[in-house]
Order: sequence, then C-alpha cells, then structure tokens
Amino acid sequence: MSTEIKSPLSGIIPPLVTPLLGNDTLDVASLENLIEHLIAGGVHGLFILGTTGEEQSLSYRLRKEVIAETCRINAGRLPVLVCITDTSLIESAALAAYAADHGASAVVSAAPYYFAPGQPELVEFYQELLSHLPLPLFLYNMPSHVKVNFAPDTIRRIAESGNVIGFKDSSANIPYFQSVKYAMKDHPEFSLLMGPEEVTGECVLLGANGGINGGANMFPELYVAMYNAARAGNVAEVCRLQQIIMQISSTIYTVGKHGSSYLKGLKCACSLLGVIKDDFVAAPYRKFNEPERLKIREALDALPVKDGKIIL
Amino acid sequence: MSTEIKSPLSGIIPPLVTPLLGNDTLDVASLENLIEHLIAGGVHGLFILGTTGEEQSLSYRLRKEVIAETCRINAGRLPVLVCITDTSLIESAALAAYAADHGASAVVSAAPYYFAPGQPELVEFYQELLSHLPLPLFLYNMPSHVKVNFAPDTIRRIAESGNVIGFKDSSANIPYFQSVKYAMKDHPEFSLLMGPEEVTGECVLLGANGGINGGANMFPELYVAMYNAARAGNVAEVCRLQQIIMQISSTIYTVGKHGSSYLKGLKCACSLLGVIKDDFVAAPYRKFNEPERLKIREALDALPVKDGKIIL
Amino acid sequence: MSTEIKSPLSGIIPPLVTPLLGNDTLDVASLENLIEHLIAGGVHGLFILGTTGEEQSLSYRLRKEVIAETCRINAGRLPVLVCITDTSLIESAALAAYAADHGASAVVSAAPYYFAPGQPELVEFYQELLSHLPLPLFLYNMPSHVKVNFAPDTIRRIAESGNVIGFKDSSANIPYFQSVKYAMKDHPEFSLLMGPEEVTGECVLLGANGGINGGANMFPELYVAMYNAARAGNVAEVCRLQQIIMQISSTIYTVGKHGSSYLKGLKCACSLLGVIKDDFVAAPYRKFNEPERLKIREALDALPVKDGKIIL
Amino acid sequence: MSTEIKSPLSGIIPPLVTPLLGNDTLDVASLENLIEHLIAGGVHGLFILGTTGEEQSLSYRLRKEVIAETCRINAGRLPVLVCITDTSLIESAALAAYAADHGASAVVSAAPYYFAPGQPELVEFYQELLSHLPLPLFLYNMPSHVKVNFAPDTIRRIAESGNVIGFKDSSANIPYFQSVKYAMKDHPEFSLLMGPEEVTGECVLLGANGGINGGANMFPELYVAMYNAARAGNVAEVCRLQQIIMQISSTIYTVGKHGSSYLKGLKCACSLLGVIKDDFVAAPYRKFNEPERLKIREALDALPVKDGKIIL
Repeated sequence: MSTEIKSPLSGIIPPLVTPLLGNDTLDVASLENLIEHLIAGGVHGLFILGTTGEEQSLSYRLRKEVIAETCRINAGRLPVLVCITDTSLIESAALAAYAADHGASAVVSAAPYYFAPGQPELVEFYQELLSHLPLPLFLYNMPSHVKVNFAPDTIRRIAESGNVIGFKDSSANIPYFQSVKYAMKDHPEFSLLMGPEEVTGECVLLGANGGINGGANMFPELYVAMYNAARAGNVAEVCRLQQIIMQISSTIYTVGKHGSSYLKGLKCACSLLGVIKDDFVAAPYRKFNEPERLKIREALDALPVKDGKIIL
Repeated sequence: MSTEIKSPLSGIIPPLVTPLLGNDTLDVASLENLIEHLIAGGVHGLFILGTTGEEQSLSYRLRKEVIAETCRINAGRLPVLVCITDTSLIESAALAAYAADHGASAVVSAAPYYFAPGQPELVEFYQELLSHLPLPLFLYNMPSHVKVNFAPDTIRRIAESGNVIGFKDSSANIPYFQSVKYAMKDHPEFSLLMGPEEVTGECVLLGANGGINGGANMFPELYVAMYNAARAGNVAEVCRLQQIIMQISSTIYTVGKHGSSYLKGLKCACSLLGVIKDDFVAAPYRKFNEPERLKIREALDALPVKDGKIIL
Repeated sequence: MSTEIKSPLSGIIPPLVTPLLGNDTLDVASLENLIEHLIAGGVHGLFILGTTGEEQSLSYRLRKEVIAETCRINAGRLPVLVCITDTSLIESAALAAYAADHGASAVVSAAPYYFAPGQPELVEFYQELLSHLPLPLFLYNMPSHVKVNFAPDTIRRIAESGNVIGFKDSSANIPYFQSVKYAMKDHPEFSLLMGPEEVTGECVLLGANGGINGGANMFPELYVAMYNAARAGNVAEVCRLQQIIMQISSTIYTVGKHGSSYLKGLKCACSLLGVIKDDFVAAPYRKFNEPERLKIREALDALPVKDGKIIL
Repeated sequence: MSTEIKSPLSGIIPPLVTPLLGNDTLDVASLENLIEHLIAGGVHGLFILGTTGEEQSLSYRLRKEVIAETCRINAGRLPVLVCITDTSLIESAALAAYAADHGASAVVSAAPYYFAPGQPELVEFYQELLSHLPLPLFLYNMPSHVKVNFAPDTIRRIAESGNVIGFKDSSANIPYFQSVKYAMKDHPEFSLLMGPEEVTGECVLLGANGGINGGANMFPELYVAMYNAARAGNVAEVCRLQQIIMQISSTIYTVGKHGSSYLKGLKCACSLLGVIKDDFVAAPYRKFNEPERLKIREALDALPVKDGKIIL
C-alpha cells in the first residue's frame, strides 16, 4: 500500500536510524517502536536506508528486510522514501523494484561512490537509471561521502529527464544550496530538502520545502515545530528552537572522533531515550563504549526534556 | 583619524576590490570613486586587502598605499578594517602597526596559509600575534585558501585571549557557522559576519551581525537593503532581495573557470558600471578578455538596474 | 581447483579488465581470450574484480560469474586473487566464500568506501572480516577511491591478526610505500606489490615483490620483462623498458578527461589489440566515442609493436 | 661571487634549515657551522629558504639576511639556490634581484599559494616572472602546501619560455614525477631533483639528477653516498643505504602530530647533533618540548652513528 506524494514533498522526513542487533540482524521490534514514535511526533514522511540508516554497511538481504518491514509497519500512513544509492546501476534498479513491490512512494539516490563520475557522466547515469525506475526519484547530494557534487545545472538536466521529484542536500554548503534553488526556480513542484538540521530553519524561512534531519529520530516534535515556525515566517520562534537544535548538535553529535561521531551519538541517544533498544552500529563502525555513552546521557540530561520529549 | 567600532560590529562591510593599473600600480582615482560609491550606498564599514582585495598578490609597498589612501579618503567616516593575513607573524604585525598609524579601526587575519597549523598551534599563533597588535583583531575563516578551518572552540579560546572583536566566515559551511555562533553565545558583543552574500540574509535573520559581501562593490544599496530587511525580520523582503542577489551570483560570478571567476567577474562588472576604471587583476590572475567581458555586460543588462543602481 | 600461493607472492599479477557486452552481461569468450593471452605472456597470477575490473559497477550476480568463469578458464594454472572490496562486511564475506568454493587462491580487500573509518576502526574491521574468510587476505590501498589510507602501523597490526599475505599500494605515494616496506621489514614472507606501472620497476629494484599493473592486459610480456630485469638488478634494462611503459602511460591513459581516462583508454586499447571484443565500460562510465578511439589507435601505432606484442 | 651551475644541476643539494634564535633573529654562527658541515659532507649545492628553511614564516628582512649571509659564508664554493616563492610576483622579483646582487646562482619558485591558479595561469605567471629574473629559474612542485600541481605539459611550456634549468618535485607522487621526466626527455640539460629522501635513490637509479633532501642537514655524507651509489647503478648499495634513510624517516620525522613533525624533528635532531645551536621554529610552529626531544634523542641513538656521522 503506497502513499502518493503531494508535490512538492514538504516537511520533516526523518532519515531513520536502522535498529540492529548485529551486523546482519534487524531489530524489528525497535523499528516498530521508532516508526510509531515518529508518526506520533508528526513527521511528514519516512526516509529509510540513507547515510543515517547505514545502507552501505548492510547486506542486500537486510536492506530488503528494512524496506519490507518499514512499509508493513507504516501501512500507508506516510510516504516512504527508500534510498537505493549504489555503485552498481543494476543493484540500484533491483532495490527500486523491490521498494515499489512493497509499497514505497519514492526512491532516493546519491551519486555512485566508488568511481567519481564527471557531471556529463552523472547526467547519463541518471538518465539510464530513470529508465529502470518504477517510482519517482529523489536526488541526494552527499559530496563528503560520494566525492562528487551535483552541479546546479546537472540537477536541472536530470530533473528534466524523467520523474524526478526533488533534491536533498547534505553538502552543508548553503550558498550552493541557494544556487540549486535558484536554478530550479521555474520548477515549483520540485522539492528542496535540507540535510543538516543546524540550517533547516533558515532554509525553510527562505523557501526550502523541509528537512531530512537525523535529530528527528530522537525528538520529532522539535523538528516539526521548527518546520512549522519557519513555514509561518515566525522568525523569533525559529530562533528559539534553533538554540535547542544547536545544543543537540553541539553536545550529542560531537562525542568521540569526527566522522562517525554523529551516527554513534544519534544511535546512542535514541537507545538511551528508549526509542530503540540497542545502539549497535554496523561495521566498519562500532557503538560507543561506556565513557562516551555517559557523555551522551549527560548531554540528554542538559536538554529541556520531559517524558522523553523536548518541552516546546 | 580612526573611527571607533560600536560593538558588535554590524551591517554590510564590503570587501573592497583593489583598483589597479598594473601589478604594482594603484588606481587612486578609482579607489576614491569606489569609496564614495560605497559610502553613498549606505555601507557600515570598509574592509580592505581581503581575498577580494587581492592582498596576497600585491607588494607590501602597494598594500601600504592601499591602507594610507583608504584611510585618507574615508576621513573618519566609517570604520576601516585592514586585512593583515600573512604567513609571517612579523609581517602581519608590521602591517598592523602601519594600519594603526594611518587611522584604521581594526585588523583582520586569516590563518597563516603556507604551513597548515593544527588547532593548538592556531591558538598559540594568535596569542602571540595579539601581543603585537595596536588595534582590535577580527578573525577570518577562509579554509579553501588557507587549508585550515578554525574549530569553534579555537575561536572561543582566541577571543578570550585578547582584544578580538569578531569573526568573518567564508567557509560557505553554514552548519559550521551556526556552531561558531552557538559556541560564542555568551559573548553578545562579539561580531559574526558572513562572507558569501548568497546566505547573508538568512544568517542575519537568525542573528548574525552582517555581511562582508563582495557584490556590495557593485550595488551597495542592495546589500544594505537586504541587511535592513533581515534585521527587521521581514522575511518576504529578504526573499525578494535574495532573488536578485542569486541572479547576480549565478550570472556574474560564474563566467570563466571556477576559482578565479568570482574575482574576475566582480572586477569586470565594477569597471562596466563605472565604479572603477580598469578591471586589471594582479598576477597570478588576469582580467577577462572580450568574450567574457561581453557575458558580464549581458548579465548586468539582465538585472533590474537603473542609473547604475538596483531598483529596490 | 585452487593454486597455492608461494610466499611472498611475487611477479606481475595483472588486474584483469572485465570484458562486457552490457552493464550486466559478461563476454565470456573475451574473458577466455584475455586469460589465455595473459598466461601466454608469462604473468604470475590473475587479479580479478579490482578497480580496473570495475567490481563496484557490476551486479553481485555478475561478480560471481566473473569469479566462476575465471577459475574455470584458469583451471589451476595460476593463483587467482579475487577482490571482495565492499562497504558491507557481510557482502565481502559472502563473495569470499563464493571465491573459495570456486577455487580462488586469495581475496583482496580495499577499505570500506562509503564511511571513511579511522585507523583503529580499520583494524577492528579487518580483524572481524578475517574471522569470516576461508582464504588468505591481501590488503589493497586505494585512497583516491576509498578516502582512507592505511597507516603503516595499521597494516602491520592487521597483518599480525590473521592470514594476511600481502599489500598492494595504488596510492602513487612512493615515500609512503617505502614506509610500509620499512614497517614490514621483519615479515619477509609478506608480499608488497605496486599498483602504478610507472614505478613498478624502481620499486622491484629496491625490493618490492612485483606489480599489479593494468597495462599487462595489453602487453603482458613487457611487464614481465620489466619485472625480471628489476629482479636481476639490471638497471639499464629497467630504464629501457621504463621508457616504453612511460610512452604507454603518457599516450594511452591520458585521452579524455582525468579520472576515467585510464580505464577507458586501457579497455579501448585492449579491444583494438583484439584481446577483448568490445570495450564496453559499465555505468557510471561509458566507452570512448570514435574521436578518442582514433587517438588510442594512433597511440598504439606509435609503439614498437609487432603482431600485437611489444618488441622487447 | 656566484658559482656557475653545470647543466644539468646534479647531486645532493640540501634544503637548509634556517637556524633561528627568535621569530626574527637569525643565528649566524649556526648558519656558518651548518654550511661548513654540509660542504665537508660533500654536498653539491645549497638550497636556502625552501619549505624546510621556513621561508614563508620569516620576515623579508630576515630572508634577505639569510641570502646575504649564506652567500658570504659559501664564498663561491658551491652553487647557492634561493627560494623566492611568494604570492606576489613583485616580491618574488625583488628577492631574486637581491639574490643576484649577493652572488646566488639560481632562484627557485613554487607556485603562488593563496589563490590556486589554473595551468594556463601558471604558464602566464612564470612567463611574466621570467622577464623579471636576473638568474636562472628552478621550478618547485609542492602541491600539499600550494594547492596546485604543475601538469607535465605546463612544466615543458614554462621551461621553453626562458632560462629554466630544472624542476624539484616534492609531491611524493612518483608516477607523476616519471611523467614529468618523460615529458622532458628531449631536454637532457634540464635537471630533475627529488624532494622526499625516501625515494631519491630509486629515482636517481632510473635517471633523475639528484635530491633536495632535508636529512642531509644532519648527515650529508649518507645522502651523498646514496646519490653516488645510485649514479653508479649499484643497486645493492642503494638498498643498504635506503634502510638507514628509512630508519631516519620512520623515527625522526614521525614524532608529534603530522604536518609539522618533519620540520620540528629535523631541526631538533640538528640541534642535538650540534649542527645548529637551538632548534627554534618560527611561528606558526614551535619547537618540540622535552618529551618529544627525548624521543628524537633516542631515535638518533638507535642509528649507526659515530662522531656525529653515519657509519657508511
């Protein structure tokens, strides 16, 4: 049962962490808990198997299990976006077919990430991929991980090649994001979503459509409130909520060494909040040990939280 | 005659292009014209010898001439900030002394840019430099050119070491900028200025103090209007002006190859607008040839300009 | 039927191009031709599914077909090394099991390449992977593609953790390679192989064990002769053959844009030489068009070739 | 009194450390001691104000003092090469004039290092610089510090534009170095010198002209012996000496954090060996503290040294 996406796709669409009990073992009960937590928190869609969802670290069997279980639990309540990023066009297409069969609403793809294709090669790659896709495509910019950045004109050319409904930017380069928005200004139905939660508020104030913000795994209401304030043009409220989000970012995502600290901190906090059971992180990463876990607990304690929710 | 800076330093402080007639020849008449143009346009300060001012390409003799002439022409009307970025602490200190003697209000320094110092080395470097400075210091983050990024905690530590009045960020990484702002939240007198004009509006909406925006060399009124709208929390007006700024950014700064295209395009447009006479660019760069110059002219013609000013 | 590897693994072990008729179609006849060509040329092993073999662009089904067909065609004549580089430990282990079942001699693994693990995480990852491997492991350094570089001490620690028989370096950083060699100086059975053919000769002169050189797909005799001359300490002959290899490198690998030019040029030359039928390159790359193909033909014509072989 | 350079410039030309007593105070007595130590050790030239000489950290006044004092002490015994790398063409030309007036034999220039010019801009920059130079020019490739890499064809074009006598490569990318050598194969009088001492032996074996190796500040005889062995094609002797050089590289240049560890370790060792008095390092770096100094002492003690010289 798939949910049709209203254009442009808007709101807070959390990139779900993948609850694991081992490198190849999905924690289905925690996934159920997480999805109910998010839906109760008012989010506008579910984004699975992204960077936060550790897609690349998971086996294809497990990726499929995540797709099937998420669609089953969601039961048509929200649009489900499935990340099919791969180095192999064939495997991307296979995952897309599986997602369509199980009721997902759209697929998401960052650039192939072993070779670093040039911009014309990106256009050709996506034109070929689009011919295989049974679902609308969402582009995903993640240059730190895939080594290439979609040029604004590349996005426009891909978008005009087929059923491409939007773009998520995790580059953290906001002048670049504004350039993409400007290049797509004649496509108001094309959705522009922001990755880093530290800037989602300001980007939505200026017309972006929402955020794919990892922190919403912990506190969905906070990010939904930020989105609503920004959509309403309520600058003072955006500034107030921004302070809380910056506290989260500055304390929960900065424990341990850079690179993996965001993912480990987020999963650890989710487990401490009871949203998921264990914070197992798939290889090549590992979950925090006790000293780091204690720091995350202290960071959570310092937040204005009551009953597991941010006091809004 | 120096102008004291009110804390926190706020508004639009353009990074002046340096009008040249040759690698070692300042065009003083154009500098006069430029400064009068900026002051008439309502800017809040003058920032000389930055990246846009080609400091590193100029001889020390010419750097000093720019300082002396700017202070003379300004005649105390606006704060003058002088970039003293250097690889040698001794040369930075010498330029700072010269700037103080001629009436500048503050000095600005990006990290030394040949070796790439670590964060503790940056703290030590600035602590030593501060002991030599007769003027307040403004920090300048420019990782693409100097290869190092100031960690938020490094900024805080330097700021607490002496007379440091603010921070300009040209990283384009706005989540990072928000982290710096969060780290400095207990220092309301510390000024946070944005480099890229594509995001100055949104950053000021959320509490930044202004912008050091190259486009203000051409159209100071536009950037001042953007700043005022953002300070007033007028989201609709920010969005309207943002469109014009994005048109400038997407057409004037993108002619020619990346890297030098911003500087060459900006100087070329300034000369076409009559703000400066010639768009000579110092080695290792060269000014545009006729085909690129024609594109800049077309880009200017496509803007809502009347009598050399953006119609606001 | 697997061939046991004599320690240290030595000689020229070409990274086989994967002959394709489409993104998911192996050209088995060309693979047979290629393998016979290599064995006739005197190479010392077969390295499949490396970067040159486009592993990451191929479906898992096709990767398995390459493994099964290569082992069948080889029929125990040479050691077969199978690249199992993956972002998922589970998928790496599954490919290794498949390779062992079909008679491969060893597996090869570059670091997981989506996340960029730190050095301690690399050690842990390989310790865990080693516990799953039915075959000896060869480490593969490829920082331009996987974003991380094995520190010399990381290699030593992994090597001392299990059945690790050697290291291939494609970093092009030869001072680094010499540091690895120095760190492993007490492990004479540990094989050190060089990726870039432009430096294999000098590295073998100084004690490296051989090369995994793409050019051997075209002219296996040339690279074997270079290896033999270097092993014999024949500096003059190394210098003479080096000139031919530099001519290949400077003309066949430099047509088209950087990044993909090596792979496209190599496959194109192999097809022009009749070693493989078509030079189809899997997405995200595409084979050369006629103008580039003509340049490759001219580059081949300029080489001292007779009957498809370099005149030695 | 200048020494004419025989083409191609060959041998071991150490990049002299600059003995300092403070950020702006040259230790002339130590400079005398260092130069006599090097000349007694058999080196073939003196290279001052390079990266190892901390040119960029020094004031222009001090740079001139280094030039004048070195030329005075050398008294025409060896060719003196003066690094004039700068971001400003005018300042480079001024240093070159000063060097010529004081008897230097050639100047050396890495690319301007604030902006990152493109290849055509590099050609134009050097063509303009050459018109100002009273001495022959040596090109210096140092991409880690200046952010750009000379393409082989750029080197050839610059070399054919004027009095350019050679090229030093500190990229550590030896396939690249071999490509440059191949591109310059019709210019046998053009000198090709290697920066990293870890690969100088093998590069000279294959025809390079020598090395600009920092370790020669400590042990000039060792590097001269390596050069002589390589020139004689004595592979066994190169391998034997290479082991000692790798021990130096792996122990003396790896104390402390990467980046500055080479420079700090080298200066520290020079002071412990009595070659210079103090190991003061100019800002933004600082010399080692006692714990690191102790490690350098232990590293020196572990070398086969007698009376301050490596036992050959």
